[in-house]
Amino acid sequence: MVLRYRPIDCSIARSLSLLGERWTILVLREAFSGVRRFDDIQQNTGAPRQVLSARLAHLVEQDVLRRVPYQEPGQRQRYEYRLTEKGLDLYPVLVGLLEWGDKYLADESGPSVALTHKACGSPVRVTMMCADGHEVAGARDVRAIPAQRRASTRR
Amino acid sequence: MVLRYRPIDCSIARSLSLLGERWTILVLREAFSGVRRFDDIQQNTGAPRQVLSARLAHLVEQDVLRRVPYQEPGQRQRYEYRLTEKGLDLYPVLVGLLEWGDKYLADESGPSVALTHKACGSPVRVTMMCADGHEVAGARDVRAIPAQRRASTRR
Repeated sequence: MVLRYRPIDCSIARSLSLLGERWTILVLREAFSGVRRFDDIQQNTGAPRQVLSARLAHLVEQDVLRRVPYQEPGQRQRYEYRLTEKGLDLYPVLVGLLEWGDKYLADESGPSVALTHKACGSPVRVTMMCADGHEVAGARDVRAIPAQRRASTRR
Repeated sequence: MVLRYRPIDCSIARSLSLLGERWTILVLREAFSGVRRFDDIQQNTGAPRQVLSARLAHLVEQDVLRRVPYQEPGQRQRYEYRLTEKGLDLYPVLVGLLEWGDKYLADESGPSVALTHKACGSPVRVTMMCADGHEVAGARDVRAIPAQRRASTRR
């Protein structure tokens, strides 16, 4: 079977090198929910503390999260973790996972959260659009073609 | 910090219980690329054979992939792996990972693949829409609210 791209060059693979691990995605879920402090993230994800600490450091190093100092009265200065623009851009991926889980994996009590458009209150969903303004229903309507590469060094 | 949902109920967490592991997503990448046979998937992902075998079995058991028999001349019958409807519905998640990787992690030769709408040839991208037909630019435009649960047993 002839492949028309080098799988190793693939941006999905690169993204997973950064994210491909469940605690990382759950940390991002917390960040998008406004949960920014180590102990709260730890409690909500159930990640072992050492693992969580390593994942947070990695996400900061990769500019997905940034550390912001805060100080409670009488306590030492600590840090909370906020999404950068790069991190915020992962939102459609998380919403896609949420929708898929809601559709196929929810229990009898249904989805736990509903996403609405702040501007109008209507439900929000992930979709695909083409540059001509058509909504693209699914994978069967999409063709993947080798991109024009900017250099010929990686063929 | 008060949480307005039970993180354990979250569909993102459930999806990751099924998918939260990089080989699984890379197997799905191959399936969406039309690569369906064990040896080809193994070669393109680099997954260890035993790991790949376990992941494929898990995805079949979860109805994300289905096994379809094929037979080359002079060979014993083997199976290839095709996406089910449930698997096909993961496409926006993979395209989201692709776009994010293209934007933030591509090397100097640029993206390796371009997605186009079969009907018109225009580039395809993932986006979010609300039910009123507005395009939703990003996480800052979305409000997450506790969903109406169908039973009160899980509060």
